[in-house]
Amino acid sequence: VTSIHLSNPHLNSMKEDILYHFDLGTGSHDLPAMFGDVKFVCVGGSPWRMKAFIQYIAGELGLGDPNADYPNICAGTDRYSMYKVGPVLSVSHGMGIPSIAIMLHELIKLLYHAKCTNVTVLRIGTSGGIGLEPGTVVITKQSVDALFKPQFEQVILGKTVVRSTDLDEELAQQLLQCSKEIDEFQTVIGNTMCTTDFYEGQARLDGAFCSYTEKEKLSYLKDAYEAGVRNIEMESSVFAAMCKLSGIRAAVVCVTLLNRLEGDQISSSHDLLVNYQQRPQKLVGYFIKKQLQV
Amino acid sequence: VTSIHLSNPHLNSMKEDILYHFDLGTGSHDLPAMFGDVKFVCVGGSPWRMKAFIQYIAGELGLGDPNADYPNICAGTDRYSMYKVGPVLSVSHGMGIPSIAIMLHELIKLLYHAKCTNVTVLRIGTSGGIGLEPGTVVITKQSVDALFKPQFEQVILGKTVVRSTDLDEELAQQLLQCSKEIDEFQTVIGNTMCTTDFYEGQARLDGAFCSYTEKEKLSYLKDAYEAGVRNIEMESSVFAAMCKLSGIRAAVVCVTLLNRLEGDQISSSHDLLVNYQQRPQKLVGYFIKKQLQV
Repeated sequence: VTSIHLSNPHLNSMKEDILYHFDLGTGSHDLPAMFGDVKFVCVGGSPWRMKAFIQYIAGELGLGDPNADYPNICAGTDRYSMYKVGPVLSVSHGMGIPSIAIMLHELIKLLYHAKCTNVTVLRIGTSGGIGLEPGTVVITKQSVDALFKPQFEQVILGKTVVRSTDLDEELAQQLLQCSKEIDEFQTVIGNTMCTTDFYEGQARLDGAFCSYTEKEKLSYLKDAYEAGVRNIEMESSVFAAMCKLSGIRAAVVCVTLLNRLEGDQISSSHDLLVNYQQRPQKLVGYFIKKQLQV
Repeated sequence: VTSIHLSNPHLNSMKEDILYHFDLGTGSHDLPAMFGDVKFVCVGGSPWRMKAFIQYIAGELGLGDPNADYPNICAGTDRYSMYKVGPVLSVSHGMGIPSIAIMLHELIKLLYHAKCTNVTVLRIGTSGGIGLEPGTVVITKQSVDALFKPQFEQVILGKTVVRSTDLDEELAQQLLQCSKEIDEFQTVIGNTMCTTDFYEGQARLDGAFCSYTEKEKLSYLKDAYEAGVRNIEMESSVFAAMCKLSGIRAAVVCVTLLNRLEGDQISSSHDLLVNYQQRPQKLVGYFIKKQLQV
């Protein structure tokens, strides 16, 4: 049995723990009763997508009507949305490292207070691909920074601490196997570059500012490809680092919405983008169903 | 007349510009007709608060019913919310530097495409105070980083570029004068520390991880106070840097929800927190009304 590992000696001396950005707390809510049975947590940027995921998984697991309206557990705040069906929790995290980090601090404490065991956390998201057909799903091997290094720099009291961004290799292989069994879309295992900016930070030419040429952009993206990077997003490094520190098995599964070697703007039709965005959800839903059947 | 300054030579050669995270674009929307009259843009993290702001300002300016339901211009996406009444635009930006940066890239391009002139952008937000009574409003003099330096580090093609975080001093003084005229709450001008994390990055003891003592925490916060820091939030540095690069007059007006020298958890009652959060909105609303009457 694997419990949640909390590296904070101060928490035990607190009478109450308010999870402010969830509008939940140990004094106001019975967290073990509400969440004690959680085994899988799926997180993603968009609140709409995380609601759609809980409906999808309810149907897949035969635990509820996929067309029903599931209540938002964090209805008292507009910072994050949270839904639950059986052993599956679905939580939105907004965009960027700081936004997902706030959510993960409070999620890890929630799972700890609820005495959850053997939890797997999966990020399902969207990304820009490098050298892949749009719609390809990437399971992250290593999350790397803008210099292609597999690390996350956390600033603590003004000093920089470097943390590992390793993810569970066996889990990544299990997810790849699931994609083969589904056999509906391409999935690869590759490195994911995690940036702090969508435009200049990802070498886009279409932001409000751009000081480099198209040639310099392509040279940077090709260097990334050479370093094993297959997609770019904005949350995987701190996600990997925080899950590792907490002893939680974790994976990042993102679909690519475009091939960045071909362009910068996301110009596919709405219906095609919706189809692409369903792929990580389908893959992770299949994986959870398979795990629960064992 | 001051126009929006776009430092990107690539944009003029694009046939169409899709503002993906707003679900707007130059090919699909008549941006000059929709936004050409905008003079004030108010931005804040919470979508609920930005909707409440547009209702409040509609009533204050006599342009609409404060109890009416104003349509979300970005209803096609759940990334950001946007509302408009007369010359005032209200936009949510989520939490953290990456989230507000995506919004600002697309907002600056939107204002440019719409041919807006003489625009003022004001961030109204919440923050942790240092050495101030909770509920005090802080108008930012300089946005500083975790080492108290007035700069923002932008990573471009893997290289770090340092940008200035200067804000408009005259605008800050005008806002302080408005607070004196309202005479309902304390307002100060001070430095604002902008961090990339809410827990370890702000020296909190109540995150999922904490490797420092309460003494070390207080020592860091007192050093911040000595450097002129009066509050801590997570968006002001990139906000100041991007507005300055675009030639846009900008201010940051945040209320403090707690005094960080006294604690870490936001434990005030819901009603008191709502009252505090209305203060930046009241101050900025008064300022806009006064500016339009000149």
